[in-house]
Amino acid sequence: MPSFSIGVDLGGTNLRIAAVSPEGELLEKISVASNLSLGPDQVIAQMCDDIQHLCAKYRDAAKFLGVGVGVPGIVDVDAGVMQKAANLPGWEDYPARAEIEQRLRGCAVFEKKEPRVILENDARAAGLGEQWIGAARGVANVAMLTLGTGIGGCIILNGKIWRGRNGLAGEFGHLTVEPDGIPCGCGNRGCSERYASASALVRMAREAIAGGAAPALAQAAASQPEFGAKEICQLALQGDEPSRRIFSSFGRYLGILLADLVNILNFEIFVIGGGVASAWEAFSPKMLAELATRSIVYATAAHHPGLPKEERERGAGEGKTVITRAVLGGDAGLYGAARLGQITG
Amino acid sequence: MPSFSIGVDLGGTNLRIAAVSPEGELLEKISVASNLSLGPDQVIAQMCDDIQHLCAKYRDAAKFLGVGVGVPGIVDVDAGVMQKAANLPGWEDYPARAEIEQRLRGCAVFEKKEPRVILENDARAAGLGEQWIGAARGVANVAMLTLGTGIGGCIILNGKIWRGRNGLAGEFGHLTVEPDGIPCGCGNRGCSERYASASALVRMAREAIAGGAAPALAQAAASQPEFGAKEICQLALQGDEPSRRIFSSFGRYLGILLADLVNILNFEIFVIGGGVASAWEAFSPKMLAELATRSIVYATAAHHPGLPKEERERGAGEGKTVITRAVLGGDAGLYGAARLGQITG
Repeated sequence: MPSFSIGVDLGGTNLRIAAVSPEGELLEKISVASNLSLGPDQVIAQMCDDIQHLCAKYRDAAKFLGVGVGVPGIVDVDAGVMQKAANLPGWEDYPARAEIEQRLRGCAVFEKKEPRVILENDARAAGLGEQWIGAARGVANVAMLTLGTGIGGCIILNGKIWRGRNGLAGEFGHLTVEPDGIPCGCGNRGCSERYASASALVRMAREAIAGGAAPALAQAAASQPEFGAKEICQLALQGDEPSRRIFSSFGRYLGILLADLVNILNFEIFVIGGGVASAWEAFSPKMLAELATRSIVYATAAHHPGLPKEERERGAGEGKTVITRAVLGGDAGLYGAARLGQITG
Repeated sequence: MPSFSIGVDLGGTNLRIAAVSPEGELLEKISVASNLSLGPDQVIAQMCDDIQHLCAKYRDAAKFLGVGVGVPGIVDVDAGVMQKAANLPGWEDYPARAEIEQRLRGCAVFEKKEPRVILENDARAAGLGEQWIGAARGVANVAMLTLGTGIGGCIILNGKIWRGRNGLAGEFGHLTVEPDGIPCGCGNRGCSERYASASALVRMAREAIAGGAAPALAQAAASQPEFGAKEICQLALQGDEPSRRIFSSFGRYLGILLADLVNILNFEIFVIGGGVASAWEAFSPKMLAELATRSIVYATAAHHPGLPKEERERGAGEGKTVITRAVLGGDAGLYGAARLGQITG
């Protein structure tokens, strides 16, 4: 009998629920408004209705495995609770997993079976998704950076999410890239996400506009109510100098962050995803140049005599650490959450 | 029958060879001059004579397990070759492990048994030593920073050295702590080891002396031919302001490096060793203050609701990531090398 799990991705705008097979096939996806202002009880009620709906639909033909839920914030996976939930008012210390489990337990569709639910940070779910069926498919050790409003991180070690002692590993967005830099909400100064995220792009654009020497940016900001990373990227790719400089700075700091990660972890592959990754053409040349200059591991790996012969024969470049874009787009976290519903431990 | 292995630590000044039991008991230690100027053939001849001597002495009463050799430089462990050997002229791409094995194979004491030899970077050997019988004894996941002329690094994951895809993981000394900082031999600018190592201390002292406002440092440098980290530390602990400022800068950058590592790895314990760790009193207050401000993981871990109840009851501080001094001193690498001679895979 085939089987399936449910993946849930709770974002600031949309709540998405999907039924996914163990082969990574999407059986069905539901997308509704998150309605975060209604508070966690209401959001979870909606979520559980949709989970139940999908389960009722597929459970006759396939065995139900479990539910994975990706949420934006720092998650205590063992407790099933969010410790920090800056973008989800009311979710901090709220027993989210227990609430979901209790509601599902009451659903006729689950009969007497205990529904297995895992709550996880959405960037980690995205990393698992890319490692499972995305850009890093089949690679055991992977790090993923999710570039959104901030920077999310995920470390996959031997195919499993590395959570660390307190479940807090992979906070790539809070690495210091400028020691006397811009203050961050985390208490630090000069965090990478203050320089290489969507909010950093908007900050730099506002600064350029205020400086009076960025007419195209000023016009875009005045005329487009949703002015943001996408519009700045468009201008940069059209050759607007102030916009290009913004992405050059973005790429530089992302390169510093990547060089640190490569020097520490020496993983096979580093995946860059999240909404801002779609500006790849605008920031990646500078990012990769910075990485090549700054990481001795990146530079040395290319000429490693211990590499398999076939790999060396394919050229020195083939031995390099792979830096690549995510391929699952906005669905990485949804797939990863579904994967969490399939695996145990 | 009890057993033993041989650990070798090849340093710039001394070559040390020890017979060590699987319980971490030192059976005997030999220390001779490294004589690096004689080249690898001569150094290895001396090393193998001493290995043979110790083996002949202990092999009747105990089973010989293998040899681990710690060397300063980037090591391709699979190939048994040093890829970068800035401080060991003639050792780069020299087949060190094969040479050692061939010489030992010819020794009567090994009879027809194939001697198992592992070549490893000395900072990694030190990390394994501290995790085995030192400051991080019994802890599965550990990172160690070795503060010497530069900064060495070691990541222990589930009790094993994490070497990464190309055997290059753990290059903590080349993390960027100052993006437009001092150029480093690795090609980067602002590497941590340019700011928080013995050579960084001496650089800062020379700069302070040249500035004309550091009379005590100037006097020490003029009168002591071996003026270095130790003398600067003494002055700092005696209250000399310029020396204190040097260690404050050192501690600040080490704190930035540590915060990055804690935010990425969220390990149980981070061990700080190497010769400069003996200046702990001079740099650790600033280092720990910087870490506390800069690492959201360090700060959050202390209040983690998922911690075992007993741990929380011992007070919030108890949940914190442990940052501690190494305890094996200059022998960490020697013990770690011996440990490598005991374990397989």
